[in-house]
Amino acid sequence: MVLGYDGLDLQADYWDAPQDSSRFTSQPADLVELTRFLNDDFNGNRVIIDCSASQEVADMYPRWLALGIHVITANKKAGSGPSELYNDCRQAQEGASAQWYYETTGPGSGLPVLCTLKDMVQSGDTVHKVEGIFSGTISYLTNAVAAGLPLSEALLQAHALGLCEPDPRDDLTGLDVRRKIVVLARELGLSLELADVITEQLMPVELSDWEPDTSDNAQPLIEQLSAALAAYDERLTACVTEAADNGMKLVPLGSVDLSTGIASVTMTPLPISSRLTRAEANDNIIAISSERYSPQPLIIQGPGAGCEITASGLFGDMLALSRTLVEWTIPKIE
Amino acid sequence: MVLGYDGLDLQADYWDAPQDSSRFTSQPADLVELTRFLNDDFNGNRVIIDCSASQEVADMYPRWLALGIHVITANKKAGSGPSELYNDCRQAQEGASAQWYYETTGPGSGLPVLCTLKDMVQSGDTVHKVEGIFSGTISYLTNAVAAGLPLSEALLQAHALGLCEPDPRDDLTGLDVRRKIVVLARELGLSLELADVITEQLMPVELSDWEPDTSDNAQPLIEQLSAALAAYDERLTACVTEAADNGMKLVPLGSVDLSTGIASVTMTPLPISSRLTRAEANDNIIAISSERYSPQPLIIQGPGAGCEITASGLFGDMLALSRTLVEWTIPKIE
Repeated sequence: MVLGYDGLDLQADYWDAPQDSSRFTSQPADLVELTRFLNDDFNGNRVIIDCSASQEVADMYPRWLALGIHVITANKKAGSGPSELYNDCRQAQEGASAQWYYETTGPGSGLPVLCTLKDMVQSGDTVHKVEGIFSGTISYLTNAVAAGLPLSEALLQAHALGLCEPDPRDDLTGLDVRRKIVVLARELGLSLELADVITEQLMPVELSDWEPDTSDNAQPLIEQLSAALAAYDERLTACVTEAADNGMKLVPLGSVDLSTGIASVTMTPLPISSRLTRAEANDNIIAISSERYSPQPLIIQGPGAGCEITASGLFGDMLALSRTLVEWTIPKIE
Repeated sequence: MVLGYDGLDLQADYWDAPQDSSRFTSQPADLVELTRFLNDDFNGNRVIIDCSASQEVADMYPRWLALGIHVITANKKAGSGPSELYNDCRQAQEGASAQWYYETTGPGSGLPVLCTLKDMVQSGDTVHKVEGIFSGTISYLTNAVAAGLPLSEALLQAHALGLCEPDPRDDLTGLDVRRKIVVLARELGLSLELADVITEQLMPVELSDWEPDTSDNAQPLIEQLSAALAAYDERLTACVTEAADNGMKLVPLGSVDLSTGIASVTMTPLPISSRLTRAEANDNIIAISSERYSPQPLIIQGPGAGCEITASGLFGDMLALSRTLVEWTIPKIE
C-alpha cells in the first residue's frame, strides 16, 4: 500500500522497490490505516474507487461513507450482498452526505443504465419493469451455441476473450448476473437478497458440487471445467435447436418486475422478432418500461463486459461525482 | 408575462385575470424586461427553460448566459441555427460559467444521448460515428407505408397522434431531423450549418413550392397537405416495396461521421437483420461507435417524440443542472 497526500506517479516503481520519501509512504495493505490516512486529509473531497472483488473492502464502505468519504465501486459485494450491509451503506451515506456510485455493478456494466433510471425516478416517472440480457458472458455463450459450438468449447473461447469471471463457475451458475439483478432491484426500491432471484443456470445440475483439482500439476481451472462440461454439451445444444426449430431464440432473460416484486433470470425462448433477441457477441440489452416509456420501452444496448467498458463506467461515475463537487467545466481529457 | 420572486402558483388564473399584487406582477411579454427581472434577483441560481420554438427567444441566450443565467431548452433554433449564434452562446457560457443544456434538441429527443456522449468524451473516449433513426415522425411514416398505408394517409394518422411539427412540412422536408443532426454534429466538435446536412426528403420535389390556402374557409393545413401528397403516394410505396422484395427495409438513416466530417439523412435500404431496422412506431435508435464501443456500438432506443418524453428530457437537464448547484440528495418527486 503506497500513500501520499500530494499524489502518486502511476508510472513509478513503488511496488517493486518499496521506499519511503517525503512524498509518500509504502507499507503493507491495511484498510484501517488507509481510512485513517484519508480521514486526516485536509482536502474535503475524498473518494475511494474500489476495483477489487473483495468482501473485506466492501465491508468498509459504511465506515468510509459515514466519514464523508465518497465511494465509487465496480465491486458487487456490498450492493448485492446481505441487506444489512447494503442498508448500513445507505444510512451512513445519508447521514454524512457522502455519495456512493456503482453504475458498473448493475445490468449493462459500463452502459448508462442506473444513471438513466435515477433521472427517470427523480423526474417523477414510475418504472414498471426492467428486463433484458444482463450477462454479456451468458449471452456470448448461448450465441456461440446457437452458431454450432458446444458449450464446453464456447466457454474456452469466452475465457480467452477475457469475458469470464475469475472463477467461470460464477458465470455458469448465474451468480454474477444474479448479483447485477439484486443491485438493480434494490435501486428500484425492492428489498431482496441474492437467494430471492429465481435462477435458471447453464451449469448442469450434476456438476453443482463439482470442484477443480487444485494440486500443483493440475490443469488450469477453465480447462478442467470445460472437460467436465463436455459430457452435458448436448443438453444446451438440444434446447437451442428446439427453440430455433420453432422460430425462437433461447436467451438468458433477466427481469425485475415492480408490479409483482419478482426478480429472475431464466433461459427463455423468445420469438426471433423480439427486440431482446438482438444481442450480438457479448452485448447486454436493457429494456426499461415505465409510465412514460410505454408501450415502447427505453432500450440501452451495447457490450456489457470487458476491462475498457468497466473502466469507462467507473470514469463516468467519477465525472458524475465531480460535477457535484467542483465547477462545472471539466476539460476534455486528451 | 407574470413575474414573481417568491414563486408562482401554476394553478392560479394569472392569465385570464391579470392583476398586480405584492407577490407578482403581470404585464405584456417582454424579454428585455424578463432579463432585467432575473438579473435583479438576489438568488444566485437562475435558469430559463425555453419550451418555445421561437427565434426571438433563442436570440437572447448569449445575453442570458453572459449574465450567468443558465439555459435549458427544447428549442432547436440556437443549437442548429447559424454558427454565429451558436458560437456566441458557447463564448458567453464559458465567460460566465453558466450552463446550457439541450438534450431534447438532439437525436432521440428525451432519450439520454447527449449526456451519454458527454460522459464518453470527458472520460477520454473518441467517438467515430453516430448513426440511426433520428426522426420518430419519419420513422412512423415509413413504418406505416411498409404496413400498406399510403403516405398521405399515414401523415394524417401521425398528425392525429401528435407526432408532427406544428407545420408538418418541416417533417416531410426533413428540416426537423436536420436540426437535430446539426445539434449532434456540433456537440461532437464539427462546425457546420443546416445547409451542410445532406438530405433526402419525403416531400415530393414537385411540391417544394407548395403553399396552403390560408383563406378563412380553407381546410386545415394538414388536410390540404395530405390531399396534395396523394398524387405522389405511389412513389414512396414503390420504393418501400422494392426494398422489401430484396429483403431490405427502407429507413430514414441519419448519420454524423467524424472521420469524413459528413452529416446526412437519407432514405436508405438496410438488410432486415440490421439493428437499425428495429424502430417500431415512433422509435428513435441512436448507435454510437467509438474507440471503446467497437465493433459493437452503444445503442439507445425508444420513443423519440411526444409531450411527455420531451418534458421528461427537460426535467433530466434540470436535474443535471441542479446536481451541480445544490446538495446531492434530491428527494424523489411523488
